[in-house]
Amino acid sequence: MNQPRTIDLNSDVGESFGRWTLGDDTALLRSLTSANVACGFHAGDFSTMDATVALCLEANVAVGAHPGYPDLQGFGRRAIAISPREIEQIVLYQIGALEAFCRANGVRLTHVKAHGSLYNTAAVDIAAARGLARGVARYDASLPLVGMAGSRAYEIAAREAGLRLVTEAYADRRYMPDGTLQPRSFAGSLITDPAEAAAQALSIAHDGTVTTVDGRTIPVAAETICVHGDTPGASAIAAAIRTALTGQGISVQPFGVTAAA
Amino acid sequence: MNQPRTIDLNSDVGESFGRWTLGDDTALLRSLTSANVACGFHAGDFSTMDATVALCLEANVAVGAHPGYPDLQGFGRRAIAISPREIEQIVLYQIGALEAFCRANGVRLTHVKAHGSLYNTAAVDIAAARGLARGVARYDASLPLVGMAGSRAYEIAAREAGLRLVTEAYADRRYMPDGTLQPRSFAGSLITDPAEAAAQALSIAHDGTVTTVDGRTIPVAAETICVHGDTPGASAIAAAIRTALTGQGISVQPFGVTAAA
Amino acid sequence: MNQPRTIDLNSDVGESFGRWTLGDDTALLRSLTSANVACGFHAGDFSTMDATVALCLEANVAVGAHPGYPDLQGFGRRAIAISPREIEQIVLYQIGALEAFCRANGVRLTHVKAHGSLYNTAAVDIAAARGLARGVARYDASLPLVGMAGSRAYEIAAREAGLRLVTEAYADRRYMPDGTLQPRSFAGSLITDPAEAAAQALSIAHDGTVTTVDGRTIPVAAETICVHGDTPGASAIAAAIRTALTGQGISVQPFGVTAAA
Amino acid sequence: MNQPRTIDLNSDVGESFGRWTLGDDTALLRSLTSANVACGFHAGDFSTMDATVALCLEANVAVGAHPGYPDLQGFGRRAIAISPREIEQIVLYQIGALEAFCRANGVRLTHVKAHGSLYNTAAVDIAAARGLARGVARYDASLPLVGMAGSRAYEIAAREAGLRLVTEAYADRRYMPDGTLQPRSFAGSLITDPAEAAAQALSIAHDGTVTTVDGRTIPVAAETICVHGDTPGASAIAAAIRTALTGQGISVQPFGVTAAA
Repeated sequence: MNQPRTIDLNSDVGESFGRWTLGDDTALLRSLTSANVACGFHAGDFSTMDATVALCLEANVAVGAHPGYPDLQGFGRRAIAISPREIEQIVLYQIGALEAFCRANGVRLTHVKAHGSLYNTAAVDIAAARGLARGVARYDASLPLVGMAGSRAYEIAAREAGLRLVTEAYADRRYMPDGTLQPRSFAGSLITDPAEAAAQALSIAHDGTVTTVDGRTIPVAAETICVHGDTPGASAIAAAIRTALTGQGISVQPFGVTAAA
Repeated sequence: MNQPRTIDLNSDVGESFGRWTLGDDTALLRSLTSANVACGFHAGDFSTMDATVALCLEANVAVGAHPGYPDLQGFGRRAIAISPREIEQIVLYQIGALEAFCRANGVRLTHVKAHGSLYNTAAVDIAAARGLARGVARYDASLPLVGMAGSRAYEIAAREAGLRLVTEAYADRRYMPDGTLQPRSFAGSLITDPAEAAAQALSIAHDGTVTTVDGRTIPVAAETICVHGDTPGASAIAAAIRTALTGQGISVQPFGVTAAA
Repeated sequence: MNQPRTIDLNSDVGESFGRWTLGDDTALLRSLTSANVACGFHAGDFSTMDATVALCLEANVAVGAHPGYPDLQGFGRRAIAISPREIEQIVLYQIGALEAFCRANGVRLTHVKAHGSLYNTAAVDIAAARGLARGVARYDASLPLVGMAGSRAYEIAAREAGLRLVTEAYADRRYMPDGTLQPRSFAGSLITDPAEAAAQALSIAHDGTVTTVDGRTIPVAAETICVHGDTPGASAIAAAIRTALTGQGISVQPFGVTAAA
Repeated sequence: MNQPRTIDLNSDVGESFGRWTLGDDTALLRSLTSANVACGFHAGDFSTMDATVALCLEANVAVGAHPGYPDLQGFGRRAIAISPREIEQIVLYQIGALEAFCRANGVRLTHVKAHGSLYNTAAVDIAAARGLARGVARYDASLPLVGMAGSRAYEIAAREAGLRLVTEAYADRRYMPDGTLQPRSFAGSLITDPAEAAAQALSIAHDGTVTTVDGRTIPVAAETICVHGDTPGASAIAAAIRTALTGQGISVQPFGVTAAA
């Protein structure tokens, strides 16, 4: 390519709860351009959210809402048979709650990305994806929705709801031959070596490809790369990715900026 | 008085939760001009909130946020030693969550009124009142705060935060000689006879007075009158009050309208 | 038949939560021989449980634990992808919590019956049924497990865990041709007419059959008949059933008694 | 003293919740003789409880129930105006839930110790202490109650309820001149230096005294010494205490054993 590529680097933050701390957001935010802030259903609480939005502001990282299923004990990672209409409403509730802290801290809400089981369900279940997209659209149809690159459900639901879909790929998860993520239940599904995660991020951002668990190279068209904030050593992984990307002349910047250009 | 008086009539609504229904909001809303919608901490949930805001719109009743302590099982009626900073944050969270449903339903959020123990604590504890008022102000300083008529804490906190305080009196609660409410733990503290509640509302709206438990008449300057939505027969009480007020030439209208006039 | 039949009549009780009341347990208990008491996960709370066990004692009704998924807002009726091991643990937790109130009230815990989505999942998913049965067995393998008549999953799981399975049929739900219940989402799946429910109960208890939605008669071998406590008019339905059964010479008594005979 | 003293060493364990881990129980248990296991209200969940009881069994540490206020987000450290009757019921519920995991793991429940704000409230509020003691007694009056050494409220309530009171002092908290603990809000109220905590433990166990924040020496008669499990480096502190105690010929053993002797 002759043109310099640009890519966004995002992570889930604010996933502490009350007395319990998860991840090192301050360190992680140094490498990110976008952050998905937990909204109290799967993680996060009113105090964590206020502090996290303030941290993002200080780190100059774009703030998105990160709604999940109402399941603190399961961290929003259990599938729940919740209707599309209810998905719409849990998304609305959580975006509103987070935007309150954005307003209070003088920060603009830039996007929405679903968490855990809600994110994964929407990637394969068009009814769930429609609930998610409709929740965002009823709140503010100008808010981009971050969804899994290659998911037809996300594409269709976002288009129908009039939302911009921001496609996402993972630096620290293994890919199956069909482009989906290897389930967490498989050993090794999570890439925890910074160099390896950086290599995968570079492949995504520079070549638009990713290597699957069976060694094939498949295309992936992503506008943002995700690193998991609750992986041990997440901030080192994120830093390695950012260094690798910028080292190859790839501009790491929020997708909102890209869109405006 | 030569001038026709105007007064607002408010009640707490949307206090169902999941499978559990509380009150008959549809019937109650017919008599109200303002509604305080539960936001999920002491009552209400994402589905109830969406449906309740839609009901208010249909009934042409002004919608306010009704934040409470995080205590579903105690219905927000237990005192909790929560810091002023946390009060600020639970208020922010809940206002934001409710406004999401206002946006989704094309309704304007008109005010904030705290629930139960948070409301009562703020009436006598200036630090709590400041947390409450600051939570509202950080969200939107143009949102009026409904507070107990005669409470110095509400007055000071609202003024410091730059908020309009809308003073409130109760049609269906007995008053103590010092102008505070007789605690619910006393038998008879709740007025459940529609005629009696209507008489007290009329006294408040027309004469600016209320009769105390020991038979004295004390002044009370209220811009809005509250009826409890979870009292048995609440809708009949509200209807009796509205009829009594309009029958005496008092205009029952949202305080927002009054302010704009 | 020449021999008088005996049958147990059970219902879910104690499904209020905090400020929210559901059903009229006092009236309902007059007709029951066994009660399944909610344990705080889908409904019920520490105060409701204490009061409900006392009510059962007063009404001389056998007390069982009624564990459900951890989902108050969904009333335990949503399917949740919770592992068999976690099912075992949520069952243990809830049986223990309920037995505390049995001990405190001098009442013996007589059985366990799962609630809502957990009950239905166990009826068709052997892994879930094993989790349920193992939870009961780890607590006390002499506690009978109430499960859906005709469910192979319940049969296998109970046998493997060394539990007595008490088979159950429904007086107030429509049956599909294959012996499963018509889903609640279908209009008319709930029988709310006392006479009709009584007729179905009689058919179950006397003839060992039930009529399906398409008019066929299928066999059903049940030791206990369930009436839903949260149906409007549940106590009238239960009373009609009891009257119909005893009117036909069927002895309505707890299955524990039957077993001991 | 001529006689070798014996003392118990206890800590709160099992205070993780879902995805969130708190403390290193495995390391901590190596030094303890008694453990207070969180029961799901302020911390802990059904899976954590099962695993924690199994860990205690493996480490040969006595298992007690550690009931707290229903406040996960506040970790049970907020005062809540909950009635004595409700305290009784939340204690019953949580003891029962924990004993289920004791039964399932073949472990005997040895004691009850309240958590955080419930523990502290009971130390000074006789009505709360009575609720706590009555909850234990309604469950099993042979279960010892661990309470703050020197608290009249604990003494009276335990005696009235017919419970054995096991008096407790703190190795890692500063004492006020009146024998109460310096509030956590004060800087330095928590002793985090292992040597210093060991010295305080030794003073308690050997001399029956503790040094207050203003340098005085006051008597304290304790049968068990507590170390906080959520302090950073808790396991090192506990190990230092145990080494110091045994080094001075003090036998560290569960109070249950002492009682039986």
